[in-house]
Amino acid sequence: MPIAKGYAATDASKPLTPFTFERRDPNEDDIVIAIKFSGICHSDIHQARNEWGNAKYPMVPGHEIAGIVTAVGSKVTKFKVGDRVGVGCFVNSCTTCATRDLDLEHYMPGIVQTYNDVEADGETPTYGGYSDSIVVKEGYVLSIPDNLPLDAAAPLLCAGITLYSPLHHWKAGPGKKVAIVGMGGLGHMGVKIAHAMGADVTVLSQTLSKKEDGLRLGADHYYATSDAETFKTLAGTFDLLIMTVGIAVDWNAYLSLLKVDGNMVVVGAPEHAVPVHAFSLIPGRRSLSGSMIGSIKETQEMLDFCGEHNIASEIEVINIDQVNEAYERVLKSDVRYRFVIDIASLA
Amino acid sequence: MPIAKGYAATDASKPLTPFTFERRDPNEDDIVIAIKFSGICHSDIHQARNEWGNAKYPMVPGHEIAGIVTAVGSKVTKFKVGDRVGVGCFVNSCTTCATRDLDLEHYMPGIVQTYNDVEADGETPTYGGYSDSIVVKEGYVLSIPDNLPLDAAAPLLCAGITLYSPLHHWKAGPGKKVAIVGMGGLGHMGVKIAHAMGADVTVLSQTLSKKEDGLRLGADHYYATSDAETFKTLAGTFDLLIMTVGIAVDWNAYLSLLKVDGNMVVVGAPEHAVPVHAFSLIPGRRSLSGSMIGSIKETQEMLDFCGEHNIASEIEVINIDQVNEAYERVLKSDVRYRFVIDIASLA
Repeated sequence: MPIAKGYAATDASKPLTPFTFERRDPNEDDIVIAIKFSGICHSDIHQARNEWGNAKYPMVPGHEIAGIVTAVGSKVTKFKVGDRVGVGCFVNSCTTCATRDLDLEHYMPGIVQTYNDVEADGETPTYGGYSDSIVVKEGYVLSIPDNLPLDAAAPLLCAGITLYSPLHHWKAGPGKKVAIVGMGGLGHMGVKIAHAMGADVTVLSQTLSKKEDGLRLGADHYYATSDAETFKTLAGTFDLLIMTVGIAVDWNAYLSLLKVDGNMVVVGAPEHAVPVHAFSLIPGRRSLSGSMIGSIKETQEMLDFCGEHNIASEIEVINIDQVNEAYERVLKSDVRYRFVIDIASLA
Repeated sequence: MPIAKGYAATDASKPLTPFTFERRDPNEDDIVIAIKFSGICHSDIHQARNEWGNAKYPMVPGHEIAGIVTAVGSKVTKFKVGDRVGVGCFVNSCTTCATRDLDLEHYMPGIVQTYNDVEADGETPTYGGYSDSIVVKEGYVLSIPDNLPLDAAAPLLCAGITLYSPLHHWKAGPGKKVAIVGMGGLGHMGVKIAHAMGADVTVLSQTLSKKEDGLRLGADHYYATSDAETFKTLAGTFDLLIMTVGIAVDWNAYLSLLKVDGNMVVVGAPEHAVPVHAFSLIPGRRSLSGSMIGSIKETQEMLDFCGEHNIASEIEVINIDQVNEAYERVLKSDVRYRFVIDIASLA
């Protein structure tokens, strides 16, 4: 079996450390990828530290993977050696029901996470992108457009699709007023994508500290949520509001910013339940929804869209031995806007 | 000004008592209606007892009104003396924006409630259906199909449209699995209407005490929510779930019954906020929405639909001097399924 090098968490309370491990032998429908860059997602931290209670150690995090194809199985038709490819949050899914055809396979129980999971055989652990190679079934590999740099494209595989999917599903576009709540790794992607879709984009951030960036990335308006006037000024304004903030805020205040038939979509999950008033929903036929990444088909559409509009993430590239420090900075929101590990630093 | 007789609340803590009052003089676009029947809605009790904090006394409740046209203004074109008509929850609305054209006027601030409100002049109080006559602008009067008895049709004007609107908006129909939570005045209308729309209908009621009725009215399945097995059996089952229960229940448990992309619509408002977990929404792109009555156009569509399918409310007709006793019985859910006041008993 091929040997891979990487960084792994071995315990909820310890820093990530160098780790050498075996990847599975490639099958005839598999792609072998030399990983070049791997983004750091907040959920990597939750899982490495077992904050969701389902950690399997040793754990190699990373589901924002960009690299180059180094080998393909005999039945692979869509990729060849040398192709620029990406891998996102899952590497397999249930194929026995119709959901794959409906582009909903990511919502099905049969999904296999890129790391901290086991392959369909129920045994082989999956290891993620903080490593130099990965073996993935062709159907779960994405093509990265030629004009996007691999490092800045890596975060599209999770942050990008997490925002693209609800913006696309709830029809952000010309004539629509879209609010992006939170100007972090997720939020800044939402600004770029919603702007490229043609929507009128408003950022709602705690302060105005990132206002200049927000406007540069495509926002038409920028408000501080620490200013109570914001909620009065913007009452009843938005068709769609994407809540990227994963800590508890008053959802009712944000629901009040929606127009009749408006939709607030939660993509960041607070630890505890949030109180919701029926009267935040009833008087304007408002909806509160959730959304999670996207299907493989939709993820490819997102990458093609980003290629067409020359959209990638705003990143800070780090060496892999800086990963633990980067985690601390993510927790302090001290990154503009996504850390990406240069896997060359593993050598 | 025309004199009307009725029953009014004069104080939050006192029973309703006979009350004689003036209706406004009819204008050229007004209809004068001899009220024959008036349904009792739970919200009548909330308002008569000032539980929503906005009571204006004396208050003549009643927004499920069925009667006969006795006079029409010179510019009225759609109605004539002798027509069977209804009046629902509002008797005027904002006409300066496009929402009336969009059939969303009931969600706009300019709405004038049928009672406990003031007319567009900002002064003249509105009085509701627990009375022998009412004067209403033509555009807010509905036509009741000939085949529906006036007494059983009266509750369609609030309970009927409250269920029809979300069932119609979220596309209940053949191939859709719809759950109606609560088998009361609202819920039993939902069962009939969803069944007539062609959906597969499940009632979720606290116990099985009304199961026979539910199946007779059109439910395909009937489960007790007091049985924890219900939530296991039905996990991930429904495209649409209408929550008619206005007391606090665990919304997360009901959200877990939705399919991917399913929608839970709240039409009954608990007094306090209900805790909602992001993870009840995110993993299935589920939505939690609210809905409130319907536009005038949609209310007429609902009445026509009910005429076509011979749908009306299951009622218990009472004399108006039984109204206070009826209120107590509504609070104990001791009615199958809607009280309707026979206004002839006022004479």
